[in-house]
Amino acid sequence: MTAQIALTRPRDDQGLPARLARSAAARHGMSGSVEDFHAWFARRRTATRFAVDRISFGDLDGWYFRDDTGDLVHRSGRFFSVGGLRVAMGDPPTASWHQPIIGQPEIGILGIVAKEFDGVLHFLMQAKMEPGNPNLLQLSPTVQATRSNYTGVHQGAAVRYLEHFTRGESDRVLSDVLQSEHGSWFYRKRNRNMIVEVSGDVPPHEDFRWLTLGQIAELLRYDNLVNMDSRSVLASLPAASTPRALHSDTELLSWLAAMRSAHFVRTERIPLRSASGWTRGAASIDHERGRYFSVIAVAVQAGNREVAQWTQPLFEPRGEGVVAFLTREIEGVPHILVRARAEAGFLDTVELGPTVQTIPANYAHLPPEKHPPFLDVVSAVPAGRVRYSVLQSEEGGRFLNAVSRYMVIDADESMAPLAPPFGFRWVSHGQLAEMARHGHYVNVHARTLLTCLNALAARVG
Amino acid sequence: MTAQIALTRPRDDQGLPARLARSAAARHGMSGSVEDFHAWFARRRTATRFAVDRISFGDLDGWYFRDDTGDLVHRSGRFFSVGGLRVAMGDPPTASWHQPIIGQPEIGILGIVAKEFDGVLHFLMQAKMEPGNPNLLQLSPTVQATRSNYTGVHQGAAVRYLEHFTRGESDRVLSDVLQSEHGSWFYRKRNRNMIVEVSGDVPPHEDFRWLTLGQIAELLRYDNLVNMDSRSVLASLPAASTPRALHSDTELLSWLAAMRSAHFVRTERIPLRSASGWTRGAASIDHERGRYFSVIAVAVQAGNREVAQWTQPLFEPRGEGVVAFLTREIEGVPHILVRARAEAGFLDTVELGPTVQTIPANYAHLPPEKHPPFLDVVSAVPAGRVRYSVLQSEEGGRFLNAVSRYMVIDADESMAPLAPPFGFRWVSHGQLAEMARHGHYVNVHARTLLTCLNALAARVG
Repeated sequence: MTAQIALTRPRDDQGLPARLARSAAARHGMSGSVEDFHAWFARRRTATRFAVDRISFGDLDGWYFRDDTGDLVHRSGRFFSVGGLRVAMGDPPTASWHQPIIGQPEIGILGIVAKEFDGVLHFLMQAKMEPGNPNLLQLSPTVQATRSNYTGVHQGAAVRYLEHFTRGESDRVLSDVLQSEHGSWFYRKRNRNMIVEVSGDVPPHEDFRWLTLGQIAELLRYDNLVNMDSRSVLASLPAASTPRALHSDTELLSWLAAMRSAHFVRTERIPLRSASGWTRGAASIDHERGRYFSVIAVAVQAGNREVAQWTQPLFEPRGEGVVAFLTREIEGVPHILVRARAEAGFLDTVELGPTVQTIPANYAHLPPEKHPPFLDVVSAVPAGRVRYSVLQSEEGGRFLNAVSRYMVIDADESMAPLAPPFGFRWVSHGQLAEMARHGHYVNVHARTLLTCLNALAARVG
Repeated sequence: MTAQIALTRPRDDQGLPARLARSAAARHGMSGSVEDFHAWFARRRTATRFAVDRISFGDLDGWYFRDDTGDLVHRSGRFFSVGGLRVAMGDPPTASWHQPIIGQPEIGILGIVAKEFDGVLHFLMQAKMEPGNPNLLQLSPTVQATRSNYTGVHQGAAVRYLEHFTRGESDRVLSDVLQSEHGSWFYRKRNRNMIVEVSGDVPPHEDFRWLTLGQIAELLRYDNLVNMDSRSVLASLPAASTPRALHSDTELLSWLAAMRSAHFVRTERIPLRSASGWTRGAASIDHERGRYFSVIAVAVQAGNREVAQWTQPLFEPRGEGVVAFLTREIEGVPHILVRARAEAGFLDTVELGPTVQTIPANYAHLPPEKHPPFLDVVSAVPAGRVRYSVLQSEEGGRFLNAVSRYMVIDADESMAPLAPPFGFRWVSHGQLAEMARHGHYVNVHARTLLTCLNALAARVG
């Protein structure tokens, strides 16, 4: 008898959860402690001069408003553009509006390289400047590449480590999924969220650092440190699962299908100049009542980006957001109250979002009964029930100071009943994590909270 | 101690596979044998007079070509419409064309009621006429309802048994998923595919009959008998699974994400009159070279439909299709060679399709090296390797005589290598069945073949 190499393999990577748990338990990694990380990060912050200045639209270089549509576009036809969107929700429509929206049809790559050192999985994270970040430098995935990046339209340096995400079969994929981003600001944008484990050597670079999951969990406790792309990518790692839940998996998928059928969303891209209710000034496009967001422009000087200086538009929300999971243990199984959210820019009408996801200032003019459900519960939550409360910002390459307080709250029946209102559903932590391994189920805000929840679970363990 | 009712339940319905296997093994059901079925079906066929006649567009009632766009629409603004689509595939584009396309933004319900009789699951199937079916009457799901149907735009009779799919929680959902339909003919159409198990009484009606899975499997061996909607809905039932496969689940999802990123599809809806290469005559809209399909119109007289007579447009393909799975057992695990198919009307760029899905006549003018991959293998397959070969037609409410030979072929390395060409992948039967429980993974042609494959597996067992 000769040994035969099996052609088939297990469909599930059964060793991965234990390896992730080991990494989550590690507070010390191959590049030292969390304190060492902070020292390194402070050095990176001072190593390169960054400057971001607001400019008027007339000072944008390479960007211009099209004569025919008023859309804000780049002369290359690449990157992204700002056009208009007409939205009608409901059949017959119960709400309709116009708004500026970012168009970016290309699928970018958000990739994290993973590698074992001394038997512990580490993740290669990058200190990266984005102009919209409130503190400019944040901790990013190994790779953040638009298609323009890696096809050379930027005319900048090659994207470091990109080859691990494009060359195919030689590395080991831990997760890979096309995920939506902000459906209120992007039109059908999605990015490829990948984690790839590498067995060979990975050449070091001063802007990159290997961290364990336990270290990343610790860093998620700091305001505006771990960037949105990192939080999104890490959400697709498998989480500890339980075989029971309030609803079966089939019931959960059925509820989502029902929500998608019930929400009737009609969108039509329109010329930006036709977006009524919005006015364009010299340096910003604003809503007539000063709500929602503005479109502005910035000039950027940076040393460690592919291109050393550039100008670009950004969306700037009006006010700080509140994004919260209400959670409960049900018969020992951790559950989260999610909401079926219809965002105008979603490819697929509805995704699962947090219990609360809102910018309260947009509702300040309305009576309390018109506030988003559970916002008042979150606003009045006793400190003892707050499991997590940290400021996190959205993608700094497109959004300026888009900061929200992300919260995980330990709720009870009076705060969050087991029979929730229409449009809400209890899902187990394991169910939500498994859904996040598929695209268009879990929105980007809920993915951030899922990553935070995984980090909390790791700290308890 | 008092007994406490558990709030949580198992996430998976672990009893269901065995119950499905029992139903699949049953050749005799509560309404008799397959022979009894045929007698009943023949009676249904003669019970009502059906007549479908081609008419000129001018004789359409309620339908008209819009003055501004040339789109073919209904005066209610409902049902569906025929507009134009401009398609460019590739970046930069490698193929581009114009075509007519059906717009139907509403999500319909395709629902099958299931119920146990004497411990065996039965499925309530309907003898239903659709004007485009080659033999008019086919076996349909319990319910086929467009949103127009169930909101009363048809002004016809209420849809029988619809309440089992709309009232929510009281019945037991076995599967529920929004699935795409023909991406070459529909623009982002999807329907809700549901199977609901009912415990209470279901009032009988002469057009409906309870069948076991084993009986339906038998009926799938007849040409043009089990309609497309039935085949699609049944594909989302769980199939027997195996823990091993040629690729892990993560690898498979990663490959699909890569295919979706690699296929760059730009579509823009245009006025039908602007669709170049297509000309409108008195009774048809045709491609200038007589290829692909035509848009035609029919008048329908029927007795057992919600509305007794009507006129409507239909798409009529030019020629019979070939739709085939090449299959292999790999280390004892049944595998299928699927293709990542980009169809212009897909919501999400690429879905998994059959190994071969084509209308050969459209390629007759091209040299062999430009024929679709594996078409020549299928055309020359030895009879002993054909596991399934039956004519099936597509949705008769929209397509006239859209008939394809659906085939399942037992392939070997010379016909279908384990290392397939770019765009193809081996997936296990269990993997494909699990993907079909989510939307936008498995296209409608592959769902038909999956249902046939499940039926084949049942016959072997």
